Amino acid sequence: MFRFDPTISSTVAAAGPPAGPGAGLAPAAAVRGPLSTAELAAVERCWRAANYLAVGQIYLLENPLLRQPLRVEHIKPRLLGHWGTSPGLSFLYLHINRLIRKRDLNAIFLAGPGHGAPAVLANAYLEGGYTAIYPEVTQDEAGMLRLFRQFSTPGGIPSHVSVPTPGSIHEGGELGYVLTHAFGAVMDNPGLVAFAVVGDGEFETAPLAGSWKSVDFLHPQRDGAVLPILHLNGYKIANPTVDARTSDARLFQYFAGLGYDAYLVAGDDPAAMHQAVAAALEAALDRLAAIRAGGGERRWPILLLRSPKGWTGPKEWNGLPIEGTFRAHQVPLANVRGDAEQLAALEAWMRSYQPQELFDERGAPADDIRAWAPRGQRRMSANPAANGGKLLRPLALPPWRPLAVAVPAPATVRLESTRRLGVWLRDLVQANPDNFRLFCPDELDSNRLSAVLEATQRRFELPIISIDDRLSTDGRVIEVLSEHLCEGWLEGYVLTGRHGLFCTYEAFAMIPASMVVQHTKWLEAAHELPWRAPVA
Amino acid sequence: MFRFDPTISSTVAAAGPPAGPGAGLAPAAAVRGPLSTAELAAVERCWRAANYLAVGQIYLLENPLLRQPLRVEHIKPRLLGHWGTSPGLSFLYLHINRLIRKRDLNAIFLAGPGHGAPAVLANAYLEGGYTAIYPEVTQDEAGMLRLFRQFSTPGGIPSHVSVPTPGSIHEGGELGYVLTHAFGAVMDNPGLVAFAVVGDGEFETAPLAGSWKSVDFLHPQRDGAVLPILHLNGYKIANPTVDARTSDARLFQYFAGLGYDAYLVAGDDPAAMHQAVAAALEAALDRLAAIRAGGGERRWPILLLRSPKGWTGPKEWNGLPIEGTFRAHQVPLANVRGDAEQLAALEAWMRSYQPQELFDERGAPADDIRAWAPRGQRRMSANPAANGGKLLRPLALPPWRPLAVAVPAPATVRLESTRRLGVWLRDLVQANPDNFRLFCPDELDSNRLSAVLEATQRRFELPIISIDDRLSTDGRVIEVLSEHLCEGWLEGYVLTGRHGLFCTYEAFAMIPASMVVQHTKWLEAAHELPWRAPVA
Repeated sequence: MFRFDPTISSTVAAAGPPAGPGAGLAPAAAVRGPLSTAELAAVERCWRAANYLAVGQIYLLENPLLRQPLRVEHIKPRLLGHWGTSPGLSFLYLHINRLIRKRDLNAIFLAGPGHGAPAVLANAYLEGGYTAIYPEVTQDEAGMLRLFRQFSTPGGIPSHVSVPTPGSIHEGGELGYVLTHAFGAVMDNPGLVAFAVVGDGEFETAPLAGSWKSVDFLHPQRDGAVLPILHLNGYKIANPTVDARTSDARLFQYFAGLGYDAYLVAGDDPAAMHQAVAAALEAALDRLAAIRAGGGERRWPILLLRSPKGWTGPKEWNGLPIEGTFRAHQVPLANVRGDAEQLAALEAWMRSYQPQELFDERGAPADDIRAWAPRGQRRMSANPAANGGKLLRPLALPPWRPLAVAVPAPATVRLESTRRLGVWLRDLVQANPDNFRLFCPDELDSNRLSAVLEATQRRFELPIISIDDRLSTDGRVIEVLSEHLCEGWLEGYVLTGRHGLFCTYEAFAMIPASMVVQHTKWLEAAHELPWRAPVA
Repeated sequence: MFRFDPTISSTVAAAGPPAGPGAGLAPAAAVRGPLSTAELAAVERCWRAANYLAVGQIYLLENPLLRQPLRVEHIKPRLLGHWGTSPGLSFLYLHINRLIRKRDLNAIFLAGPGHGAPAVLANAYLEGGYTAIYPEVTQDEAGMLRLFRQFSTPGGIPSHVSVPTPGSIHEGGELGYVLTHAFGAVMDNPGLVAFAVVGDGEFETAPLAGSWKSVDFLHPQRDGAVLPILHLNGYKIANPTVDARTSDARLFQYFAGLGYDAYLVAGDDPAAMHQAVAAALEAALDRLAAIRAGGGERRWPILLLRSPKGWTGPKEWNGLPIEGTFRAHQVPLANVRGDAEQLAALEAWMRSYQPQELFDERGAPADDIRAWAPRGQRRMSANPAANGGKLLRPLALPPWRPLAVAVPAPATVRLESTRRLGVWLRDLVQANPDNFRLFCPDELDSNRLSAVLEATQRRFELPIISIDDRLSTDGRVIEVLSEHLCEGWLEGYVLTGRHGLFCTYEAFAMIPASMVVQHTKWLEAAHELPWRAPVA
């Protein structure tokens, strides 16, 4: 557990994680850290651009670059979208981009606060991944206007990260599944790092609380890695979040108990925070690399980001604070069409990002902003793992006819049908040693599928003792008593281009029913998009 | 975090919790602890009796007191029921009984491992609560036979703790909800202590993992208390549990992070364990009393019990270990009807409890065993809180006619219907200040029910700051972003005789669907039982 004090983190980040918690963030004027002056300036500009595009998507119907003074007729008739989480998501996305470039990471981004789509879309657009898939959304003024107008508009795109979002395997909306999807995605994907942002709202849900145990089933070399990022921005729709009011010490203990070391980045001064998060991400990735190399204790990193909700947005309205409160959750200035003062405040807010410095005369992102993004498929909006159908290898199906049971006369043979299915699944596992998994809440044996275990074992990364039954760190079967984990892992595994089966008792199949509904909706929506290749 | 070493816990328990972890359990021959010699002998006899009755329910169709040598025709045709968890449940139940007597506790028992019904039923029978409700199941040989025969038999009772189980508000089977039910039960029940046993299998489920935050919504004086007991007996059906293979240190950190101090009782020597659990329970109840008294830091106690699965049962069969492994999960000797050696082993196992010493000539429990139980409604099988309909006060319903909206002509009035409902709910909350609660996943405002907050506030037990919106430690509204918590708390609240409402978006109502199904099944089954008074 480390608090990154950017006033000390420059040496710290170079020398490895600091030895203990720092004294908090100083509102440093001159900040030291891993970012060079040029890098700090560039990421700060990228962040302003992403924030500008996020606000534009929520509000604007015309005048995307504010070439004219803002007028009521430039504003959408109905204001939708979530500002509160967006600046934090962009902040993270952009710093991950730096590390993708620096370390040539193969990375995907999962936004648990998927309602922060304005941020995810803004970044996909800035790095060109959006235009690659939707050529009509060009990187110029006309394309920017299209990006703004389509957002949460009939005939446009949803206000949540969703199937049409390039780079996403995770739908925003129903919260709780981001970690299970991330862990499912990296299983048997040893080169992949999934950055999974967990909102402090989602952190209260049961499925999310149950997801942390996933590391106890992850193989450091045969699987990829997940870097969870808990984004504590303080409030839900109308209430503080439980964990925003929980002490750092309690959070550190909680994660330590789950097998993680927490890296805390907390504050609101952008320059200091840029340095701090860069240092923390470097340290976390170093830790992942060390775990992968097999050295030392296997304590997984997690990043805790405490930043204001609606960061860089309006500070207050009518004497009530907005930034840092629940009032920033969705649309912070909701009556800009009816209130000229609010409209002026919106204009001042948008101009505070200085769009004319960030986009060129045509409306294209400035060169340094484009250069901040990784290249080609290293862009998180273009990573093929997030369009798993492209990577799908067909499942080798063993013949089933040899398993037919001879029944000389009716009612003369006694056989359990699932035992026979188990034999076929055994052959299936053998024929597909690296892209098929069986997820089960401890019911493989009791469902009579035990023959599978003649070909493989049950995966378990905690200590294994002699009386255990066919456990190993290399099994194709994962048994955990959580239907939510089984279903979520399966979804993440399948959406990244592999095959799997979730077997459970029919009485308990209902437990993750809403997950299954959401997943089938995803598949249905993906079917409509030509660029999404079909998954298993 | 304390390990109870029974060789030192005698002074320890008298002087308060020890200052640090002990050195583990010595296989002490002469054990010191809070139990007097007579108490130790009595609880040891009670435990033997409960274990005997548990085994009898699983196996026997005749010859309940083993007056004759055991023969195949005394064995049930189909062996069902779960032995593995049963001895641990009885062990806890009996030690809680001692403290109910000693401290005059108003307590209920929730068995998360509800498949350990043989234990819960055995204890209800021993303390007379069972016979009080089912007079035909007499406390004599004939009644004992009836107890055995009815168990998991067509026309009998389920093999899980369920609606027919006296003292239960919690159904076994679908795992994950025991803590939410316990916390719901104690809300607005300041005198009540709910002992909630969580199995280490259930501990892997998402709904259970999400339940610990409940303490952050519990008022130490206005609500009762929950003592969670995590029973780590090592194995699920076929796999080790994740947390049985997690170090004590990690578990301590995990619970510390959640706001709990863990009291560990670990071992397998019965005499030592009796003293250790007695000491730990005393310390945990002292802690609850201190929190209630308002002194010091609010760190809730939780008991961790590491004991062998199938404790006191067969050690091994055919060279394979049974006690302490997954093979003890259900019926440890499954072929007693087909294998004379197994039958002999069963007989030896049952006779090891020395039933002739525990039950008198008529088959009634011996006097000291009956005297171990609390009296009347203090028995957990007879506590009215677990038959909530008996305590139900009708909800005072405010008039709705005054809220009618005048509509002079069609399509002339614009009004959101849920806003109007909010006004009525406001009046409802005012009219029912201590037995109605509104549970909501942070959607009260966005569902336009905000008028409720004119009459009450949102309950929150963590620090409240000035920018928060109508939060207090005394609100009738609880908002947490977990549909599982909301639904589970509501169920526990209603089943103990109060009224409540769970309001959520229709899109997310599906999340706890399987809980709702299970609850409605409970209500349906309760309707068939004349002794269960209807709940709200």
